[in-house]
Amino acid sequence: MNYDVIIIGSGPAGLAAAIYAQRAELNCIVIEKNPLSGGQIINTYEVDNYPGTPGISGFDLSSKFREHCEKLNTTFITGEVVKFELEDNIKVVTLENGTQYRSKTAVIAAGGLPRHLDVEGEEEFSGLGVSYCATCDGAFFRNKTVAVVGGGDVAVEDAIFLSRICKKVYIIHRRDQFRAAKSSVNKLEAIDNVTILWDNVVERIKGTETVESIDVKNVKTNEISTLEVSGVFIAVGYIPSSQVYKDIVALDDSGYIIAGEDCQTNVPGVFAAGDIRTKNLRQIITAAADGANSITGVEKYLNEN
Amino acid sequence: MNYDVIIIGSGPAGLAAAIYAQRAELNCIVIEKNPLSGGQIINTYEVDNYPGTPGISGFDLSSKFREHCEKLNTTFITGEVVKFELEDNIKVVTLENGTQYRSKTAVIAAGGLPRHLDVEGEEEFSGLGVSYCATCDGAFFRNKTVAVVGGGDVAVEDAIFLSRICKKVYIIHRRDQFRAAKSSVNKLEAIDNVTILWDNVVERIKGTETVESIDVKNVKTNEISTLEVSGVFIAVGYIPSSQVYKDIVALDDSGYIIAGEDCQTNVPGVFAAGDIRTKNLRQIITAAADGANSITGVEKYLNEN
Repeated sequence: MNYDVIIIGSGPAGLAAAIYAQRAELNCIVIEKNPLSGGQIINTYEVDNYPGTPGISGFDLSSKFREHCEKLNTTFITGEVVKFELEDNIKVVTLENGTQYRSKTAVIAAGGLPRHLDVEGEEEFSGLGVSYCATCDGAFFRNKTVAVVGGGDVAVEDAIFLSRICKKVYIIHRRDQFRAAKSSVNKLEAIDNVTILWDNVVERIKGTETVESIDVKNVKTNEISTLEVSGVFIAVGYIPSSQVYKDIVALDDSGYIIAGEDCQTNVPGVFAAGDIRTKNLRQIITAAADGANSITGVEKYLNEN
Repeated sequence: MNYDVIIIGSGPAGLAAAIYAQRAELNCIVIEKNPLSGGQIINTYEVDNYPGTPGISGFDLSSKFREHCEKLNTTFITGEVVKFELEDNIKVVTLENGTQYRSKTAVIAAGGLPRHLDVEGEEEFSGLGVSYCATCDGAFFRNKTVAVVGGGDVAVEDAIFLSRICKKVYIIHRRDQFRAAKSSVNKLEAIDNVTILWDNVVERIKGTETVESIDVKNVKTNEISTLEVSGVFIAVGYIPSSQVYKDIVALDDSGYIIAGEDCQTNVPGVFAAGDIRTKNLRQIITAAADGANSITGVEKYLNEN
């Protein structure tokens, strides 16, 4: 049997797509790697920027999304997608156990993960001072001292953003200049409560219950210093989970599936929603909007084919 | 004093923008025509497609958005914007009482309204069988008989959408052919449970507590017939509230402010968010995403100027 749509992934984008697909009475399944839906937000201590649910835990918010889907009788299948192919217009999804599913359309909402530093204390204090999203978590560090790690656009913009909220912001970069846009760098350099540490890398993140300090090493002198900080914002890139799809849909240089607001990829009937697609702002609310937009595209495709 | 950002409108787009602006500690005000925030959703009987809050009343959902903003100490100003001007890079907003506000950036989230038929019973049964959004409300009419009014893309797509959910769908169009895309029209004409009524207009909508029937008139023969329906989906266009802004920002032929996913208009530092901008899908979730995206644009503009 061919489904109308297979949704791959059960983060905010996939679950929102499921809500729209079920309400449209499309014949739909959601394939999820982890039967605990929610994607990255499951492990988020507090989400304060999903409009309408201030100060909710990531676990509770993803449970609400999941319950919404279950109220609409969504079919979930647990499994990891290992192959994605086309048979003429039919999209064929293969799981690691060999099961295959066929569908007229597919919404790829497999998300991705922030790149980690892989240093001592990073995992231990994740959500307890270590964050990968300043837009999401910055407001929790009002009047505190924090560090941003990285040298690209996101790191520099995060540091500017945090400088308005926090008492003091260190930005730690392993090189001696930023890759970020010159205009942002000029802005950053003019801010009083920002200190730039060139040629430095984070060696370890320390604390008791939450982050209290970090050790940084100067890569030219090998000198180690300790900075007292309550938060560490790691902005060294993001790894979209797009490898399985790379022979079928076009990716950009960073591995994101190329798709605009309508979530349409270069393959008719294949959509990319949420963090995995090329977009400016990766947030729960924008991922959920992608879920809705992708199903509108699915319906349009089904109407025309 | 110049604000960082003035947000005009307090529907889902404006309130989401306020949440993002407050969390970014921007110096921000929200100007709203009606101190009951929420925009069009205030009067929506039930909202079932905002992910995470199944089956909530529009009033309750807008209250949740409003409370979220209040928790973040958002400043609301009640007033109607009657003039929008530029003084060099400064955006100047004038209210009907003459008060002026100046800001480095503006987010126009003034929304719009669906075009009405202006027939007897339309207002009385609004939300009680009369709907202006099939995507929003279609699922409430499972196995019922409904009518769609209109002949453009939205009307035809709504009728196809509703045909999967409802027992029977009438589509009522005042002309003898659709303006919609040929592919959708072909699809529609092939559906068994859809009946097309050419050359007909709705004369009145009748019922007791909810819609029970409509009278339609054939404009060629003047013959009146009565159709028993539980729902009437009116899809005859949408009027964006963009008149005040038309001398400053570029509008499309339908009066929408031209802006993409990043909400950037043709004027640097002026953003359009929600139903008022050119977009495919006008939903609460996509409006709220615009709120987030527009503030990201505001921050980028402030960083660079």
